[in-house]
Amino acid sequence: MTLLDPAPTTLTPRLELHVPTALTRFRQLRAALPGTAIHYAVKANPHPVLLRALVAAGSGFDVASPAEVRACLEAGARADDLVYSNPIKLRADIVSAAGLGVRLFVVDSPEETRKVAEAAPGSAVLCRIVTSGSGSDWPLSRKYGCSTSEAVEVLRLAAGLGLDPAGVSFHVGSQQRDPSAWDTPIEASSRVFAALRQAGLRPWLLDLGGGFPAALEGGAPALDAYGAAIRRSLRKRFGSRRPRTIIEPGRSVVADSGRLVTSVVAVVHRGDTRWVYLDAGVFTGLVETLDEAIRYRLETDVDGPTGPCVLAGPTCDSADVLYEKQPVHLPLALTEGDRVVLTSAGAYTTCYSTVGFNGFAPLPTELVLGLVPA
Amino acid sequence: MTLLDPAPTTLTPRLELHVPTALTRFRQLRAALPGTAIHYAVKANPHPVLLRALVAAGSGFDVASPAEVRACLEAGARADDLVYSNPIKLRADIVSAAGLGVRLFVVDSPEETRKVAEAAPGSAVLCRIVTSGSGSDWPLSRKYGCSTSEAVEVLRLAAGLGLDPAGVSFHVGSQQRDPSAWDTPIEASSRVFAALRQAGLRPWLLDLGGGFPAALEGGAPALDAYGAAIRRSLRKRFGSRRPRTIIEPGRSVVADSGRLVTSVVAVVHRGDTRWVYLDAGVFTGLVETLDEAIRYRLETDVDGPTGPCVLAGPTCDSADVLYEKQPVHLPLALTEGDRVVLTSAGAYTTCYSTVGFNGFAPLPTELVLGLVPA
Repeated sequence: MTLLDPAPTTLTPRLELHVPTALTRFRQLRAALPGTAIHYAVKANPHPVLLRALVAAGSGFDVASPAEVRACLEAGARADDLVYSNPIKLRADIVSAAGLGVRLFVVDSPEETRKVAEAAPGSAVLCRIVTSGSGSDWPLSRKYGCSTSEAVEVLRLAAGLGLDPAGVSFHVGSQQRDPSAWDTPIEASSRVFAALRQAGLRPWLLDLGGGFPAALEGGAPALDAYGAAIRRSLRKRFGSRRPRTIIEPGRSVVADSGRLVTSVVAVVHRGDTRWVYLDAGVFTGLVETLDEAIRYRLETDVDGPTGPCVLAGPTCDSADVLYEKQPVHLPLALTEGDRVVLTSAGAYTTCYSTVGFNGFAPLPTELVLGLVPA
Repeated sequence: MTLLDPAPTTLTPRLELHVPTALTRFRQLRAALPGTAIHYAVKANPHPVLLRALVAAGSGFDVASPAEVRACLEAGARADDLVYSNPIKLRADIVSAAGLGVRLFVVDSPEETRKVAEAAPGSAVLCRIVTSGSGSDWPLSRKYGCSTSEAVEVLRLAAGLGLDPAGVSFHVGSQQRDPSAWDTPIEASSRVFAALRQAGLRPWLLDLGGGFPAALEGGAPALDAYGAAIRRSLRKRFGSRRPRTIIEPGRSVVADSGRLVTSVVAVVHRGDTRWVYLDAGVFTGLVETLDEAIRYRLETDVDGPTGPCVLAGPTCDSADVLYEKQPVHLPLALTEGDRVVLTSAGAYTTCYSTVGFNGFAPLPTELVLGLVPA
């Protein structure tokens, strides 16, 4: 317990992070997908105590910058347990990562493959293929990924450049609610593997990406359902030639381990609408509320009947509004100074905070011994 | 010149900030609106050297948090030159600001008026009224502002609570392209003033807000046109009883003084689409590109014919895409390592940076001696 803050603050806003919950989720994922290595996506929450605990639990890591590589190594990870999964990389960053021992990089184009061959000769590469993202809360854009035929070309090019054409990677989209969403890209990956084998290459690794859900509003099937669907798909598409598999969960490991504790700054009635202003908002960690894409569950210790309200943040910025199109329901008695807790907020909050926009400090983390309701 | 970095970096990304340009824009605004005090909106860019230069030029400041109050005082501003314009304030923040000498607060509800009366007794208050925001690039939400009749009630309540009911404030929306947009709220304000006078009160201050444009893509009338339209409106609506006036420009002072210098990480062809990946993106200062609301002008020193491309940032986040719906045009010869400069990027960039999402550092500022094209 020496890693815990000896004098927990009662200041808000703060992210209460309960590392044991993240470890429980990590173990649930591992149990749901036996034989699949878990590479925690550091970008979701890079807290050093969390990383250290995940190293001890046997996690690998998904990194996207030299700073994330260093954070993992400092937490005790081995460079062999890292996959550098950013398909587009600064050349200098590849050199840095390779210098730190990273040997596995994701690419998705001939250009990036040549770059890795030059900056980290002899490395292994995965080629990312594009997916539709349908069924997820936050469908991925067309920013990354190529077609299966391009992937075959990219991996053949890689082999020709002295790289190890390790296999394929994909990502079905964040907070994916449909366990069968993995089947289409797994099928596509199996075709890439077959074509590579026909060309005499020996792909060995399939990166199933992230997208496993946290317990946000809306619900999602249990992790076991994802594991069963993915195992079924792997069996169907690869038969006895199943490659090694890894996943890159971020949100599903750490979201449920965090509670974002806020205080009510003011409750104001504007026409027929009740506005509740919190001391955390879009610029202090809640970027994922933009377009109301992610809906956090809310808890408060105020009793009595509830009613709809718009939720907004503390900065003097008109964009700092959390939920307006689809209002939330909070107690009618809620007033200045009351606590409002956003649950399942451990992912993409502290790391999305601004440097201090409008003079409001970045969201701090407090390590806690338990996740007590408000 | 001792304030300038003696060894300018060539690292990217960086914001090159040319303080003299901000001062020129400040003087242009002052010339366009003689007799109107300028309160620079610190949230747009709180760089201490900029604040110091603006103090020396005679600027007041629009602040929204104790941290911004302290930044202004440290830059040499007097507390009397500050307007605390966040209509919704933490009680503790009002106490802090009042303790630092701030005497003018914006409110927009009875609740906030009572809070200011208790936390900063005897202060002056402006009541913010709501506007449509039509004609602006970034229309304000309904987050702030009340009706004119509510404003009369709020200011009468203020007087009853021992506050100075100083007048009215409004904001026509950021990057407002229509100089006549101020007339409707000025007319509305004049009705609030008349009602207060009829009630025996003596309002004396009208806060015309911000919204004056920077030279972003799309163009906008010259500042003089804004000054003329506002002076005409004030004459028409207030006649000889024109109150003291202030404006709160942020973007229009500092946007054109900044150039965001980036490097091309990669150029990748995806199907028929060319994707250009820069080393700055949504999480390193370019939040205002979300929904493609603000379109920065782009410069590069690469010659030759241009073609359309999607612009994206460096993080491994699918949301880190700048312009996709309406592509930009950049040279076809553009390649890894080339510089791409986003002009008029001095506002809402460094301050909107994340703390380092995905291991990409916050956007740094480099003070420069001139704004040289790429």
